[in-house]
Order: sequence, then structure tokens, then C-alpha cells
Amino acid sequence: MITVLKPNTTDEQRDHLIHWLEGQKVQVHISQGDQYTILGLVGDTTHIDIELLESLEIVQSVKRVSEPFKKCNRKFHPEDSVIDCGGVPIGGGHFAVIAGPCSVESRDQIVGIAQSVKASGAKLLRGGAFKPRTSPYDFQGLHADGLALLSEAKKVTGLPIVSELMDIRDLDIFEDVDVIQIGARNMQNFELLKSIGRTNKTILLKRGLANTLKELLMSAEYIMAGGNENIILCERGIRTYETYTRNTLDLSCVPVLHELTHLPVVVDPSHATGHSNLVPSMVLAAAAAGADGIMVEVHNDPIHALCDGAQSLTPAQFDDVMKRMEKVLEAVRQ
Amino acid sequence: MITVLKPNTTDEQRDHLIHWLEGQKVQVHISQGDQYTILGLVGDTTHIDIELLESLEIVQSVKRVSEPFKKCNRKFHPEDSVIDCGGVPIGGGHFAVIAGPCSVESRDQIVGIAQSVKASGAKLLRGGAFKPRTSPYDFQGLHADGLALLSEAKKVTGLPIVSELMDIRDLDIFEDVDVIQIGARNMQNFELLKSIGRTNKTILLKRGLANTLKELLMSAEYIMAGGNENIILCERGIRTYETYTRNTLDLSCVPVLHELTHLPVVVDPSHATGHSNLVPSMVLAAAAAGADGIMVEVHNDPIHALCDGAQSLTPAQFDDVMKRMEKVLEAVRQ
Amino acid sequence: MITVLKPNTTDEQRDHLIHWLEGQKVQVHISQGDQYTILGLVGDTTHIDIELLESLEIVQSVKRVSEPFKKCNRKFHPEDSVIDCGGVPIGGGHFAVIAGPCSVESRDQIVGIAQSVKASGAKLLRGGAFKPRTSPYDFQGLHADGLALLSEAKKVTGLPIVSELMDIRDLDIFEDVDVIQIGARNMQNFELLKSIGRTNKTILLKRGLANTLKELLMSAEYIMAGGNENIILCERGIRTYETYTRNTLDLSCVPVLHELTHLPVVVDPSHATGHSNLVPSMVLAAAAAGADGIMVEVHNDPIHALCDGAQSLTPAQFDDVMKRMEKVLEAVRQ
Amino acid sequence: MITVLKPNTTDEQRDHLIHWLEGQKVQVHISQGDQYTILGLVGDTTHIDIELLESLEIVQSVKRVSEPFKKCNRKFHPEDSVIDCGGVPIGGGHFAVIAGPCSVESRDQIVGIAQSVKASGAKLLRGGAFKPRTSPYDFQGLHADGLALLSEAKKVTGLPIVSELMDIRDLDIFEDVDVIQIGARNMQNFELLKSIGRTNKTILLKRGLANTLKELLMSAEYIMAGGNENIILCERGIRTYETYTRNTLDLSCVPVLHELTHLPVVVDPSHATGHSNLVPSMVLAAAAAGADGIMVEVHNDPIHALCDGAQSLTPAQFDDVMKRMEKVLEAVRQ
Repeated sequence: MITVLKPNTTDEQRDHLIHWLEGQKVQVHISQGDQYTILGLVGDTTHIDIELLESLEIVQSVKRVSEPFKKCNRKFHPEDSVIDCGGVPIGGGHFAVIAGPCSVESRDQIVGIAQSVKASGAKLLRGGAFKPRTSPYDFQGLHADGLALLSEAKKVTGLPIVSELMDIRDLDIFEDVDVIQIGARNMQNFELLKSIGRTNKTILLKRGLANTLKELLMSAEYIMAGGNENIILCERGIRTYETYTRNTLDLSCVPVLHELTHLPVVVDPSHATGHSNLVPSMVLAAAAAGADGIMVEVHNDPIHALCDGAQSLTPAQFDDVMKRMEKVLEAVRQ
Repeated sequence: MITVLKPNTTDEQRDHLIHWLEGQKVQVHISQGDQYTILGLVGDTTHIDIELLESLEIVQSVKRVSEPFKKCNRKFHPEDSVIDCGGVPIGGGHFAVIAGPCSVESRDQIVGIAQSVKASGAKLLRGGAFKPRTSPYDFQGLHADGLALLSEAKKVTGLPIVSELMDIRDLDIFEDVDVIQIGARNMQNFELLKSIGRTNKTILLKRGLANTLKELLMSAEYIMAGGNENIILCERGIRTYETYTRNTLDLSCVPVLHELTHLPVVVDPSHATGHSNLVPSMVLAAAAAGADGIMVEVHNDPIHALCDGAQSLTPAQFDDVMKRMEKVLEAVRQ
Repeated sequence: MITVLKPNTTDEQRDHLIHWLEGQKVQVHISQGDQYTILGLVGDTTHIDIELLESLEIVQSVKRVSEPFKKCNRKFHPEDSVIDCGGVPIGGGHFAVIAGPCSVESRDQIVGIAQSVKASGAKLLRGGAFKPRTSPYDFQGLHADGLALLSEAKKVTGLPIVSELMDIRDLDIFEDVDVIQIGARNMQNFELLKSIGRTNKTILLKRGLANTLKELLMSAEYIMAGGNENIILCERGIRTYETYTRNTLDLSCVPVLHELTHLPVVVDPSHATGHSNLVPSMVLAAAAAGADGIMVEVHNDPIHALCDGAQSLTPAQFDDVMKRMEKVLEAVRQ
Repeated sequence: MITVLKPNTTDEQRDHLIHWLEGQKVQVHISQGDQYTILGLVGDTTHIDIELLESLEIVQSVKRVSEPFKKCNRKFHPEDSVIDCGGVPIGGGHFAVIAGPCSVESRDQIVGIAQSVKASGAKLLRGGAFKPRTSPYDFQGLHADGLALLSEAKKVTGLPIVSELMDIRDLDIFEDVDVIQIGARNMQNFELLKSIGRTNKTILLKRGLANTLKELLMSAEYIMAGGNENIILCERGIRTYETYTRNTLDLSCVPVLHELTHLPVVVDPSHATGHSNLVPSMVLAAAAAGADGIMVEVHNDPIHALCDGAQSLTPAQFDDVMKRMEKVLEAVRQ
């Protein structure tokens, strides 16, 4: 961490600050210029409050040199992590498609979709049993019954299952769920992150609606700090001023995250765009951008879907885009 | 809700849609123009998936006529709600200042600040015992010990206390807390909202970092739907592209919320700006804008504060701004 | 346009409004429901001030049914426009790469880069002679000399040239420029748009830093309203809260724009990301998303570039990404 | 400017970079730590391309220590600038209200409004003759005729006049205009800024829709670099994801700008909110926040206004808010 002092700082003020910094167990290197003084802080600076430091009268500016995340940092773990998802690997060259309906609605629906997406090449089945809805009056999911139906679809098709957990008190009934999704709205629900950090479940961590990539990595760090390193990151669109699409899919986050972290990155174009007609081109673009996987909503009857039907592909549309995506993957792998 | 059909819709398609809508228990009024057909949907349309409707081939556009929030809607409750905060009323002409440190650190600190802010005119004491921090390596609060120290400060000064709850499993130890704060990052933690909706505690609900005012009201609706109508809304700055301030304080939300809802609105300029030197003018502006209260961070020793010292006022600065604010309140009340 | 009146509107108020609307030469169709009255406005509603209408006491809400853009609207021109760029077609299945340095610096530089990018498959040469810089103290371009050097590179290589016009008073010296670029900061410089709308030059119109797709189309409409329909749209990243990339590339705008307009859409990943290491994956993603072309910065010596060197590819990097992009194009075309 | 080198940089690489930097006429001070090397750059660093520097292989990060703006920087000009607006001073304790219609429509309209706002205490008259409209089909203003009508209103009332210039070729007909407004969409129309920088007209520079405060100051710097230092800055709302208000009024920019620059800051709540019912509370808030003036839209007949009627106050509403604002100004001055 580097701290620049203002030109008119007295020696006494400077020494007072250095004393305070050393009290926080960092070493301070002084570089005296003719205009300003630079303090280089060496050691574990993760505890230093950068905003407090910046607010001091004598401080011109402060800059963190090293990233505040450690366990997910590629610097300390240069190889890609390969994350096991109920037998399906994601990351490190292993690409996988997660598909299924927004919500689990019935046995026929979920088993039918599972068989269909498997036939088209999906490797994991998604389906929501607990749904975060903006309105308390909207359908909130089938809860335990939904999870039981997902398990049945898993038994029939062999596809591992992905489902969202919203309340740690429900953890027990997620035993058969292979990948626990933490939704965008809970990305900074730190108590939930700490709790799942003490489990050994594979976690799909979605980027919050208006969170930076560094915040996403710090949330992954919360889980990893508890001992659980089985994390897949997921980009699902960010909130901007543009209203034509539900959110703005930030595809450049794929190469950025691959640079910053060893964790795999999956892209969800369904929630990002909110319109099924925009999903296919964003699936192809995500594959071309180097994503480690795709998560897509598929519904056999989007018009009757209880939730988010507008963004679901039909099984036929999904099958078509899977074939085209496969060609793109071949093209970028060569 | 109004649905506009595309010009080339056939009668059969139109009737099929109407049949589907009526199956969702709304009445449909048809207005046939020479260019387009307008369907007026009457009845309880809160369950209709507006995005699904919009995605249909034959639908040009859909518009909700009535707001999706009910219990917090001023239309159905024209008078201002006055919320009791441990004996201190907020709303409906009752203005109150909530002040205190970001985090509770020690008995001396919290009791000293409580006495000091009370002397300057604060009506409630705030202090964090559970702190949502972006990094798992940052100070997370004193937890139960912090709440005990807050209670002691309350006993000494008589000030009711405000503190943030992050995990519903901690509810029991918040018994002596008069106002439970739900932080910005948990504004859409719907499970937490549902749980506190079943209590009778007064809730200070902070607007999320990137949430619209309608989403804020829908989150209030989650709490009220459970039976708890003791809610104070709090604006604390939203995330924008501007980086000079930590967030952008959206003061125009005060008159907007007063129009949409009967719930009181409090403004927190400390978190919004992130810099103590910007806080005083934003306190005055919030008072002039018609806020029902202000929440400000005050610390006797900002430079040593364990959290967010950069944005805290000293007791002397707080005393000064309180005097100036009092004059502004008089000016706008006349 | 649809206007919904509030439940308590009197007949007299309603008739007064209808009279006023009819005075603006639109026909009004009334649909009386039991709760609210809907006015359907038919005819040329482009002149109606939607915000004024919304602000009236008796009006609940207003919704525009048809888009406010006409000449660039795909509804009235279903086939893709193919735009001629000095002999190179773009749009309607014709894909082209525009490459070159941010700024023209010298004869050797621009001719050398032109030869190099042509060898790698670029179809047009870009180079800035007038540079919009945030600071008045930064390099502003070689102006007329820069354009002369571009012409020379065109003569040597045969590549048509693309360069930015910032001031209509400079139009004369752009005679030999095949495609005039209107930069992001001038997207709503309406006087400039009107002026170039009266020329017959091909225009590359960049989306503004914080402009919606509808605003981009309205700016195209400004040019087309003057008679010039030779327009190519360009996505170059939008401003969001994320700071890791310079801007956020909004790739989903490609399928959205293809739906709304017949004009071709080109993607500029260099300005969007601001980092050369992120450019290749965004080139591939843009090609996969269905863009009609790519605009990329290439510099033979990025470290000495007078402007934006950070985001330029070297000729070798460009050659490599061109080969990979070609494969992606083949994959998505099949 | 401070440049931090990566831990594994060789001495040769470091010396190569220093040589390059010295070639750009800055002195380089080396501070060798055990982990990283810090280069302190002293001298005129305004020409150094910070993004290029950051993109180099061996560079960890770069930080500018001094602001890139000079002439508008408060550091080099500690006293408030007082700007003359046709005889009315703004800044340095001189507060003034600018009021009038969005567009000049007729002699009766503009003279009538001028007399009315003068009676209520306005010090300057605003009125648009050239209107930047998103659509080419919307009313674009009366142009020269509008300016002539403004002059007449000035003659009758003695109020100096403020009007927007969109095209430098129109400068001649602005001779009688006391304050030239540069609109939000032209804040980075650098050629226009340079041209008006060579005049001696007073300029009201509006912040762009999505521009940072630093960019606003850099645009002021463009004008000042040409010799014209008569500049008033104007906050008029920024673009965010919130849709309830047209834009989000960033009132915290008032204390921020007062800290960074000596130029006065005026607030326009009419364009920011877009709804006349929100304007009064934002006028009071801006006055309380320490603004040097307010710019408000007033129209004698908002329902028939040709442009932006939705956000205009009636003369009676304006008179009322002026009285309340006066009391707030007294309160904050004490």
C-alpha cells in the first residue's frame, strides 16, 4: 500500500502517522521527494482502513498495490481450478452447459425437460425450488417438494442438479443437490456466505446486480476463508441505465476473471437479457469469449411457465443453439 | 394492466390469449382500434407475469396501470405513518436524528458518544455490532458483546438504540434493540424480510446499493405482508459511475417516496458520501428536502475507529451541524 | 399512444383533454372501463410531448405504442441495409474489419500499419487526425496533415479510410475520407448530425458513453432525416459502475439492434475494454454475436503511441486474432 | 505521478522505462522496496498517458498525485471566483436565481414570464432559442427570432439573459446574450469548448448526463485554456438506473466542487427531476447544500408549453418556492 503525503506536512505529523501505521503491524518505507513524501507500507495491509487513511488531513492519496483477495487469487494459484459438480468437471478446459426451467413446477415438467436438455447435450440440470421474487405476492417456488422433484429428475436422467439456496436454515434439504446456487441478491449476504463456507458443497456464486468483479471475488473469498474452495463464478448481467434488455451482460468479465482468479466462470444469458430471442447469440458470444460454461433457461411450455417464461428457450430452440455453440467451441479451441 | 396487440393479430390468436388471461382470474376488456387492439385487464393482476406477456409473438407491449405494492401505498393509506422507535416517534411531522459510531468498540466509546450526541440533540443512538464488510478479513463487529454495550449506553442515556441484524438466527439477542436495521446489502434478502415481518420490531430498511425506489417499496411490502407495519425507509446513496463520492446520495427520493408511500423516510449522508467533510452540507440538504430524520455517524476518535472512520463526524462537528440543521428545519416548516 | 386517465376524472376534464389532443391533429379513441378510462391516440403522435401529458393532474400514465424512429426502423424496411464504404460493403451478410492506429502519427507509421493490417485481412483503415481528448493538454491529432497521411496510406494499399470528424467546419478536408466517424461524445451533437445528414458521405455513428439504443437510433434518424441514409452503427462500450474495464461492452446490443433497425452494427472492443489483453476474446465474442464488422486498434509500437496505446494490438496479435475470428465466423455462418 | 513496478522486474527493464519517462521531460525518483519498486515522477506529467503506462508488462499500477486540471483548480486560486453575468455577480457569497421557460415561444410569453419571475426575485432570465431534442421531429426552437424576443424581454425588465448555444457558427447572433449556456450533451464537444474559450462571454457549463466531476472540470479547463475564465458550473442530474425521476440530482457535487475548484456552482432541479412537483424540495435542498445559484424552469402555461412543460413551475409555484428558499438561505448563512 502506498500513501502519499501532502506537500505541507510537517515532520511531526508524518512521524505521528508512521507511528500509528506501525501500531497496525506494517513496516513503513519513506521516500522523500522534493514535492511530496511517499510512504510504502509493507506487510499484511489487509486490515488497514484505506478510506480512513485517505480522510486524514495530511494524506493526499492512498493506493493499494496488492489485491485484497488471496485464496481465489491466480497469483498464488496459477493453474485453473477444476470444480467437481456431482461428477461433471467445470474449469481448466472442461466446458459444461447447465440447463433447465426457472422454477420446478411438476414431476412431468422437470423430468421431461431434464430428458430433453440431456439429449441436446446439457451436463447439469437447473431448477429453482426457492425463488427470490421482487414481490411477496409472486410465486415463491415449491420449496422441499421442488427439491424432491429435482432429485427424481436426477435419478431418471443421471444429470447432477443445481438449485438456489436462500436461507441457511434450509441447508439440510439440499443434501441431494450437487451444486448450490447463491443468487445475485445474496452475493453480499455475508452470513450466508460464511455458513456455506463451512460446508463442502459445490457453490455457483452469481455476481450481484450492481457488484464489481472485485466484490464478486471478495464474496468468493468469504466462502473460501471458511474452507470450502469448490466455487464457480457466474456472470448474469449487471444493472445499467439501458432498459431494452433486463440487464447488461458484461462478457468482458470472462477474460478479466480468468486473469484475476483460478476459479471457473459460467455465463447466464437468460437472466441477463430477459428475452429468449436474445439468448442464442449471447450463448455463442459467451462460448467465443472463453467462458467455462453456460447456464440457460429451458422450458417445454414457456407461455405457461410460472416464472420468467419470457426468457426461456423451448427445447427445440435449445437444441438448435447447442449445435451452433458446439461449432463455436471447436473454432476457438483450435 | 393494459396489453396492446400487434396489428396483424388474428381473432383466433386474440381469443386464445384472452382465454389464458381469464384463466388467471382477471377480466378482459377489449378496445378494438383500426390499427391495434387494446386489452384492459381488470381485477387482481399482481400475479400476471408482465415479462412473459411481453414476450408473446402477438403482443406489442404491456403496461401496469396500478403499482404492485399495496400495504405501503399512500393511495390506500393517505395519512403519514408515525413509527414508534422505543418511545421516539418518526414520520408525520416528527423529525429525529439517529447518531452514533459505525461500530461499537468499547464501553467507554459507546457510552461517551451516546452522552455526547444526546447533548447535541440526537434522539436515537446507532451502533453496529454485526458489520457487513466486503472483505472476510476486515473487523466484523463485537456481536453479542456489542449489543450488551449498546444496552448499557441506552440505560445510561435513555436513548433508544438502532443496530443492524444480518442473520435471523441472531434475533433473540436483539430483544433490547429498539430499531432493527436491515442493511443495503440485505434489502433483497427476502427470507430475512419475511422473518422480521413476523416480528413486531421497528425496522429501519435501507435502500440497496443499486435498487430502485419501487424495489425498496416491494421490500417494505415483504415485511408488511407478514404483519409488521413498523417500517422506516432509509436512503443511503446509490451506486453510479461517479467515483469522487463513495455513492451518490439521491435526495430527490425524499419527495418521491413521500408521494408513493405513507412510511417515513430517513437520510444517511455518512455512508452515501463516504467523506466526513461532505456530511454537514448533505445533512442540511436532507432536512431542507423534507426528510423525516437523519442518520449520521459520529465518533469521538475517527482516526482510530475500527470501521468507516473516514465518514464519521467528531462530536464537535456533529454539534455544530445540529445547530445549523435546526435552523433549516425551522425555515422549511414555516 | 395510449393514455390512461385516473379513476376520479370528471367527464368535463376528460373532454377538455381530448379537445386539446385533437388540436394536435391526432384522433382519440375512448375505451371506458369501470375503473379507468383509456384514450387510444391514432395518427402522427410524434409531436405529442409524452412527459407533459404524463404530468397532467388527471393522467395516470402514458405509453407510446410505436417507436419514435422511422427511417432506420426495420418495420418499414425489412431487409438489411448494405452500406458502401469506399467500395467495401458492410451489412446484409457482408462482414468487414476496420483496423488501424488510434492516431495518425507519421507517414511510416500509418503506411506501415495499413500494409500490415491489409495483409492480415482488414478491409478498411482507421486513423484519427482529430482526437477528442478529455484534457486540453493532451495530444489533439495532426489535423489536415494527418488526413493527408491517411490518403497516402490509402493510395499505397487501396484500403478505404475511416476518420473522425469533430467540427463541421472541417468537412472540406474530409473529401478523400471514405467513412466519417462521429465519436461517442458527439452522438448527441445534433447540429453536427444535421449537417452531415445533408452530405452523402458514409457515416460510422458511435453510441454515446451513456446513451440508450433508442437514443442511438434517434441520432441515426437525425442524419437520415437530412437525406443521408449511409449509416453504420457502432457499439464501443457504455459507462457503468465497473472500473476494471474502461467501459462495459454491451454485446447484447447486436441482436437488439438487428431487430430494431436495418442498419449494420459494428463493434469496437478496443475502446470498450481499454486493455489490449482483453481485446482478442471480445473480437471473437462480437463475431459470434452476429456483428457486421469489427473496429480494432492496431499499432506497430504501442508503447510509443501518442494516444491510447494501452488498448492497441500489435500487428502480430492482430494477425493471430484475425485467424481465430475467421474460424468463428465460419462456425456461426454454417 | 507514482508508478509501481512488479516484483520480478529486472534492472534493465526498469532502466529502459526510466529512460523513456525522462524522454518525456519528467524527473524520476526511485524508491526501492524489498517487494516492489516505486517510481515517483516529478515535473509536468500532464502529457504522460497513464493508461499506456499501466498497460506495460512490468508495471503493477500507476497513480496520478496531482489533479490534471490547473486553471480551475482551487489549489492555485484559493478564493472563490465571482463571475459577472451581465451585471449580476454569481459566486463568492453572491447567490442568484435564473428562471424562465424551457423555450422562447412568443413575445407575450417571454416578456410576461420575465416580468413575473423578476417580481418573485429572479436575477436572470433563461429561455431556449436553440433546443437540443432527442428526436429530429420535435420542436427545435425559434432560433434567431427567439433570441430577438429574449432581447426584448431583457429591454423591458432589465434582466440579463441566459440561452444555449449549440453551434459555434451561430455565435454572432448571441451578442446580446449575457450568459451562454453549453448544454449537457455538448459538455465534451471539445471543438465548441475551444471556440468559446477564445471569446469573453460568460459561460454556464452544464455537467454531461454521465460525466464525472473531473471530466466537468476538464471541460471547464478547455474553455479556460483559451483565455476565457468566466465560467459557472451547473449540476443538472446524472443518468442512473433509477427511472422514477428523469435523472438523479447529485447534490453532493456542490461541496465536492467547492473543494476542487474556485468556480461557482449552480443547480438545475427542473431537468434533473423532470417533474414539477419534485422541483420545490430540490430547490430548497440545493440552497441548503451551499449552491451559488439555482436555475429553474417557469412557464405561465405549462400545459401548452412546446417543450418540457412537465417540469415547469407556474409563476405562482415559483413565487412560493422563492419565499421558502429565501428563508433557507438565511438559515444556512447564519
